[in-house]
Amino acid sequence: MEKVKIGLIGCGRIGKLHGTNLCHAVEAADLVAVADPYLNDGMKEWAKDMGIPQVSNDPESIFTNPEIQAVWICSSTPTHADFIKRAAKAGKDVFCEKPIDTDPAKIREALAAVKEAGVKLQIGFVRRFDHNHKKVHDVVASGKLGKPNVVKVTSRDPDHQSMDYIKVSGGIYMDMTIHDFDMVRYLAGSNVTEVMAYGAALSGAGYDKLGDVDTTIVTMKFENGALGVIDNSRAAHYGYDQRTEVMCDKGCVQVSNDLNDQAMISSAEGVEISKPQWFFLERYNNAFIAEDAAFLDAIINKKESPVGAEDGLQPVLMAIAADKSLKEGRPVKISEIE
Amino acid sequence: MEKVKIGLIGCGRIGKLHGTNLCHAVEAADLVAVADPYLNDGMKEWAKDMGIPQVSNDPESIFTNPEIQAVWICSSTPTHADFIKRAAKAGKDVFCEKPIDTDPAKIREALAAVKEAGVKLQIGFVRRFDHNHKKVHDVVASGKLGKPNVVKVTSRDPDHQSMDYIKVSGGIYMDMTIHDFDMVRYLAGSNVTEVMAYGAALSGAGYDKLGDVDTTIVTMKFENGALGVIDNSRAAHYGYDQRTEVMCDKGCVQVSNDLNDQAMISSAEGVEISKPQWFFLERYNNAFIAEDAAFLDAIINKKESPVGAEDGLQPVLMAIAADKSLKEGRPVKISEIE
Amino acid sequence: MEKVKIGLIGCGRIGKLHGTNLCHAVEAADLVAVADPYLNDGMKEWAKDMGIPQVSNDPESIFTNPEIQAVWICSSTPTHADFIKRAAKAGKDVFCEKPIDTDPAKIREALAAVKEAGVKLQIGFVRRFDHNHKKVHDVVASGKLGKPNVVKVTSRDPDHQSMDYIKVSGGIYMDMTIHDFDMVRYLAGSNVTEVMAYGAALSGAGYDKLGDVDTTIVTMKFENGALGVIDNSRAAHYGYDQRTEVMCDKGCVQVSNDLNDQAMISSAEGVEISKPQWFFLERYNNAFIAEDAAFLDAIINKKESPVGAEDGLQPVLMAIAADKSLKEGRPVKISEIE
Amino acid sequence: MEKVKIGLIGCGRIGKLHGTNLCHAVEAADLVAVADPYLNDGMKEWAKDMGIPQVSNDPESIFTNPEIQAVWICSSTPTHADFIKRAAKAGKDVFCEKPIDTDPAKIREALAAVKEAGVKLQIGFVRRFDHNHKKVHDVVASGKLGKPNVVKVTSRDPDHQSMDYIKVSGGIYMDMTIHDFDMVRYLAGSNVTEVMAYGAALSGAGYDKLGDVDTTIVTMKFENGALGVIDNSRAAHYGYDQRTEVMCDKGCVQVSNDLNDQAMISSAEGVEISKPQWFFLERYNNAFIAEDAAFLDAIINKKESPVGAEDGLQPVLMAIAADKSLKEGRPVKISEIE
Repeated sequence: MEKVKIGLIGCGRIGKLHGTNLCHAVEAADLVAVADPYLNDGMKEWAKDMGIPQVSNDPESIFTNPEIQAVWICSSTPTHADFIKRAAKAGKDVFCEKPIDTDPAKIREALAAVKEAGVKLQIGFVRRFDHNHKKVHDVVASGKLGKPNVVKVTSRDPDHQSMDYIKVSGGIYMDMTIHDFDMVRYLAGSNVTEVMAYGAALSGAGYDKLGDVDTTIVTMKFENGALGVIDNSRAAHYGYDQRTEVMCDKGCVQVSNDLNDQAMISSAEGVEISKPQWFFLERYNNAFIAEDAAFLDAIINKKESPVGAEDGLQPVLMAIAADKSLKEGRPVKISEIE
Repeated sequence: MEKVKIGLIGCGRIGKLHGTNLCHAVEAADLVAVADPYLNDGMKEWAKDMGIPQVSNDPESIFTNPEIQAVWICSSTPTHADFIKRAAKAGKDVFCEKPIDTDPAKIREALAAVKEAGVKLQIGFVRRFDHNHKKVHDVVASGKLGKPNVVKVTSRDPDHQSMDYIKVSGGIYMDMTIHDFDMVRYLAGSNVTEVMAYGAALSGAGYDKLGDVDTTIVTMKFENGALGVIDNSRAAHYGYDQRTEVMCDKGCVQVSNDLNDQAMISSAEGVEISKPQWFFLERYNNAFIAEDAAFLDAIINKKESPVGAEDGLQPVLMAIAADKSLKEGRPVKISEIE
Repeated sequence: MEKVKIGLIGCGRIGKLHGTNLCHAVEAADLVAVADPYLNDGMKEWAKDMGIPQVSNDPESIFTNPEIQAVWICSSTPTHADFIKRAAKAGKDVFCEKPIDTDPAKIREALAAVKEAGVKLQIGFVRRFDHNHKKVHDVVASGKLGKPNVVKVTSRDPDHQSMDYIKVSGGIYMDMTIHDFDMVRYLAGSNVTEVMAYGAALSGAGYDKLGDVDTTIVTMKFENGALGVIDNSRAAHYGYDQRTEVMCDKGCVQVSNDLNDQAMISSAEGVEISKPQWFFLERYNNAFIAEDAAFLDAIINKKESPVGAEDGLQPVLMAIAADKSLKEGRPVKISEIE
Repeated sequence: MEKVKIGLIGCGRIGKLHGTNLCHAVEAADLVAVADPYLNDGMKEWAKDMGIPQVSNDPESIFTNPEIQAVWICSSTPTHADFIKRAAKAGKDVFCEKPIDTDPAKIREALAAVKEAGVKLQIGFVRRFDHNHKKVHDVVASGKLGKPNVVKVTSRDPDHQSMDYIKVSGGIYMDMTIHDFDMVRYLAGSNVTEVMAYGAALSGAGYDKLGDVDTTIVTMKFENGALGVIDNSRAAHYGYDQRTEVMCDKGCVQVSNDLNDQAMISSAEGVEISKPQWFFLERYNNAFIAEDAAFLDAIINKKESPVGAEDGLQPVLMAIAADKSLKEGRPVKISEIE
């Protein structure tokens, strides 16, 4: 089987996740190098366990390695755009975790570099590779239910992150809803032209002190005429609630959550079923493998990237617009941003 | 068992539905008179079948009958307010189909008459008596999941009504969403302060020619801080889609549809389950009985009406505000109305 | 609409249930007389409420009333066979609650009388008219899944009846499993040739002292080659568990229980759904109406009875064979009975 | 992390499955050697890919390697018993695919050797490690529903295997039901004392010509008083149907199938949900990993094997008894076997 030689930049939680999948679960991958400026013993041990030959604290060691065909950028967000440009210049295909940046101008620069170099780019919107959401997309895209009319996403995290994290998260729209902004575009097969956001800090966990909210409902219009709605909560408590639905001309396709198991326990006290899987590591475990495999498939078989340049920009514009809508109490057009 | 003597005004589809339930399914009811200005042979035959002794084409025959304690107003909407005032003056308790009127001023007049007369009033928001939505309400009201954060209603009719009906319907918000406006207040246990409506005519059935829409998403803020969203479609095609959900501080309660049966048919071709019940006559069949029984219970046991004066007014204000929001492309406060 | 004049014999719980349905819910019924040898004030009041003109303590008053076309026999089991013979002699169609008798010889006599008189007979196996089980039957009978291979019935009562009742019940097979014996024949579209029963008294409620069991699994062979299994428990505690399933050549059709509502409550403590409906009065409420309507339809439209003579006999033979199997610890052929 | 050095014998489909899991998914495993008498290029390449240092066509190379602590026996069934004895003599812990042998005498010999050597033994009844069935087991074992009364297993393969395979399979009970015989013991927490089998060749695929059946229902009695039933079909067509259920004193725990996804597609044509996962490679994928991890946990932490000697013997006795029951048309006690 043809394999692609890969260099991984960033060896934190998400970097190790991709790295382990590239070593153990994605057949077309040959992970030959890893680099992290903050390389530590744990990372070194992990790399040894995985049998990765080249380990360094210098990302340049990846870009200058002529054997490497593709780069996985899993470092912190502020480094993404520069690393993309550097990889493009080196002629390497790029997988980059989301978002490219929170500044549309920087994103556009990075995308221009990718375009100029003619390399492939995939953004890490992993949920597109989830069996459930992909099924919704595929049914809509097949056209058998007609055109989409209403796109709905419910997305709730199982529990609060630390307030230290929230403080630097960029706010709910850039940190959390951004996944759903990508999802609605994926499901509707269309860009969004306008958003309206309602939000509130209802949990008492202190989001309001940070100028942030823990609960939001965002409605939107799509270019193709459809309407959409996303509802988010930072703390569902019962697990990771990830549901999508598209109402079309002739019917509706919707997905409920994957549960921990299919048990039903019935007694005089009541009937109990199992909770949704706890968080993204369980729920999107297979999706992470599938997204890496999809990019390698695009590289090897010279297909278009399944999550390309436009997908790197639009959700960020939507997040900025939603934030503006919430603050100004009015609908905001995407064209107002930039 | 103590029974309440009832007069029914209006003997069309919804009048006969209530009448039949009062005769056959609601034990505390004693339907003694029916009046309809457009009395015809079919109505007479129905009344005979039901064994109703007094049948007339004059509503006054109801109001002036001293034996009658309660009046069921099931005539056309424009007649509601006057009949309520007339009944109140006659000292009779009043059940009135929704809405009282589309003009808030007329509603307030009717409500004032009811208050002055000290009679009981119940508005026919039948969905409150559905086993599913009532369960959501009861769980939220119990407080065991904490305060409500997000209230969601999906409400889709199975298929288009005739365009002749739509033309005189008052528009989607006054005709269809009004039920959902009542529902969100019922579930949230709070009034709404602001709404934002997106809507579109997507079906090709001609709603746009009437200045109406067939698809809408309405978001809202509640006095108690919660957020809400309603999505409506005029034609789901697969049945009557009636789902509600409330996300609270500590968890979520949601209801899916009642299906025609619990069958699952599995073969190489796929797995088929049954459709939701087709429309309100099937789905809310028992709820119609329960709402009549509840009003009689309030009368006999001198309880407060379960769907009272405020409930007759607020949904109409919300419908007017949503219509204004759609037309002006901005959020509209309920306080702007009137 | 053509209506059938009906006389009801037996005015206990099941008699009143049929009577109320015939008066209020079955349009083609005209219940003109009721008779019960143990007529009491409660029965009289009920009959008055229903507006039934003729009330008597003498069943002969039914048989000799020339206006009455059909008789509903809802008296105690030992009286069934004689009343059937008497009704047949009087030329009246007969609906009879199950079982006709526990003695096959008496059943045959009654069936012979019916045949000779040329009247119609329907046995009260109400579950055939349940929307769920009927759906299983209809899918199997349509042949679209091929021939039936395996027929499965799970049937559990919500809780123990009194031991006084159990003592005179005739044992689990004649009292409880008899419904399931009818059901498997209905679903398989075939008679049973052999049964094997395992049973045990596991609840500690004292069935063993009465020579009875509270738990049983009965397997069987059908004439058409299919295999079947029934499992019963006297006390499920979580409601009335009534599931059926048929595995065919090309796939499977199965039904789960109707629940009290479609709610799902999710929190950190777990996910709770609603219990199955508690017992037959809730679960088979609509089926009781449908079975009465079906017999009247057969009478008015001169169709074959949907639950006829053979259906009155076979389940009783199966019950006797199952009891013999349990006691002798071996499979018993239906042909061994009688 | 402490790792166990492992040698793998047998490198066919199931051997590679275990080997890949031991290399990629089971952290405590260190697969250092593989041996297969029929070693071919594909096996060699696979071993190279996995980075397994020692590859041989001689199983003795495993037994004589002093570094190896545990042996995974994944060769053909007739070789199992001898390999177990050889491994035991070499002082190595043994994981052996099911069944040990089809001859109880040979099984007893192998178990005696294991016992004498004091090594650990785990039999490959993988379904015990499935999240669903394990949940049923755990709920029953917790005692919170009281004692088990009825144990039910439905187990259907998605489609026919080749008739060449069936011919040498040992018949449905030894080849297919044996998994379910293990499962009912696991769920009931008790051995079986008697079985009764009904079976038939209904598919027309030719099982009858081989003296075999494609459809069977087996009922049984457990030592602890509970009753049980297994129903099997060789070809469900809609996927791998794997459901278990235990009715206890106070309630019931049951599991339905894992589906391919949680989608529901609703339209005028009907409502479609997804099929069960196709076969054991999908459904029991994680269970295969969990069973290997569990044995290594038992080795490292000196726990008892979760699927030990008795579990290697009892299901084989049950298979022989079921076959005898089917052929003789009578219940057969397990004590009759041997």
